[in-house]
Amino acid sequence: MNEADIQAIFDGSPFISFLGLKVVSLDTATQELTVRAPMRPELQRDPTGGQWHGGPIAAVIDTVGDFALAYLVGKPLPTVNFRVDYLRPAIDTDLIAVAKVRRNGKSVGIADVDVFNEGGVLLAIGRATYSTL
Amino acid sequence: MNEADIQAIFDGSPFISFLGLKVVSLDTATQELTVRAPMRPELQRDPTGGQWHGGPIAAVIDTVGDFALAYLVGKPLPTVNFRVDYLRPAIDTDLIAVAKVRRNGKSVGIADVDVFNEGGVLLAIGRATYSTL
Amino acid sequence: MNEADIQAIFDGSPFISFLGLKVVSLDTATQELTVRAPMRPELQRDPTGGQWHGGPIAAVIDTVGDFALAYLVGKPLPTVNFRVDYLRPAIDTDLIAVAKVRRNGKSVGIADVDVFNEGGVLLAIGRATYSTL
Amino acid sequence: MNEADIQAIFDGSPFISFLGLKVVSLDTATQELTVRAPMRPELQRDPTGGQWHGGPIAAVIDTVGDFALAYLVGKPLPTVNFRVDYLRPAIDTDLIAVAKVRRNGKSVGIADVDVFNEGGVLLAIGRATYSTL
Repeated sequence: MNEADIQAIFDGSPFISFLGLKVVSLDTATQELTVRAPMRPELQRDPTGGQWHGGPIAAVIDTVGDFALAYLVGKPLPTVNFRVDYLRPAIDTDLIAVAKVRRNGKSVGIADVDVFNEGGVLLAIGRATYSTL
Repeated sequence: MNEADIQAIFDGSPFISFLGLKVVSLDTATQELTVRAPMRPELQRDPTGGQWHGGPIAAVIDTVGDFALAYLVGKPLPTVNFRVDYLRPAIDTDLIAVAKVRRNGKSVGIADVDVFNEGGVLLAIGRATYSTL
Repeated sequence: MNEADIQAIFDGSPFISFLGLKVVSLDTATQELTVRAPMRPELQRDPTGGQWHGGPIAAVIDTVGDFALAYLVGKPLPTVNFRVDYLRPAIDTDLIAVAKVRRNGKSVGIADVDVFNEGGVLLAIGRATYSTL
Repeated sequence: MNEADIQAIFDGSPFISFLGLKVVSLDTATQELTVRAPMRPELQRDPTGGQWHGGPIAAVIDTVGDFALAYLVGKPLPTVNFRVDYLRPAIDTDLIAVAKVRRNGKSVGIADVDVFNEGGVLLAIGRATYSTL
């Protein structure tokens, strides 16, 4: 599974294509997947102000962590559970999500996901467990 | 803040109104808020099969837990962090999310959220911490 | 596995017997296990004041949740991950931990654990995932 | 607060001194605190085999993350909540816990803690939120 394969799955999923996720890079040495999520009006918390609702940020974390592992396992994986911590509001910016595999085990895998704004400021962090069975 | 107030905030938020959340009931005695999230095509994981992507389920949990506390505090609250566990796939169903306040403290509040399908089967559970400052 | 079996495993584990866990009751209908953890001087945060350090509270949660599922599965299970939220300080009190199974799946199980003081006040809550493979 | 200050607080706490935590290094540039936790018989899961019970590993994570932030804030902080993921059994080894501050905010701080065996193999990972009020 390479960057084009991941992008093709993104584009084929109604929800992921609604989010508009774009693969930026896949570093096979560090097992890091970087994905860009553009702002779109439906994802705002309020009608004005340009702030992301936290829900889609969590959805980006879940998805990007999944595909960091999917690259290794060969297919998207069911999420067992995940945690997201919000550090700063995401305002008037695309999101840059960087997922790093922490474990690729026989039954579960774990990925950490850092979410940045376009200026490189850390906005949210996620940790997710997926079933690798 | 009563049921109509919560629904008005839902309807005024671009993302929450995109999710289409509808207040079902607010039990002030048990501090439980019940909300319905209808399936819509953009929230599907795959083009066919009618399965919810996990991302919007997490977004529902974050939002419904928030408003269970908002009812007590008088306004929506910033999410500090939350955890979601997925138990079963959500297929061809609206979601019924029931949030219960576990703590309403001076600096943080905690809500548990159970997500059911239309048949009452438990699909996912969430636990979220919000800033009450 | 009944209450006596669980107590025997507790007593045979160096760490669990150090914690001094005592089975209070096992409700097979509700799948709830209640366990008492006595205060002991080594578990205090400070030399005076009688406050539990949070670490042993987390350890109690991990252990009691495990055995709520072990009763169903027939043996203690490896913990995949868990979350603990601290609500109030635990001072001059034994802990009463009540674990309830939320899911007993083919690959993972989930238990919620509420921790009370002797007066029935909620002090901490935990949610843990275990491998049932 | 320097390494000696942290060690003095460790030694003055009944539970932390029971765990026997020793400060290895405090890197003020990277905001990383490294602490060693020696095996002791009371912390074993089983009478033989030399395996750590998961409970004390969680307690080490909670404590070391706390002091990575305490160095910045000037005092130990109440834990709001934390998550621990277990990757591999900890057998016949001291634990080396490395905590890194992810956020030091006005109301909450976040630390990530990686736990290694003496050979540098990653055994467990934690993410904890503390009150900085």
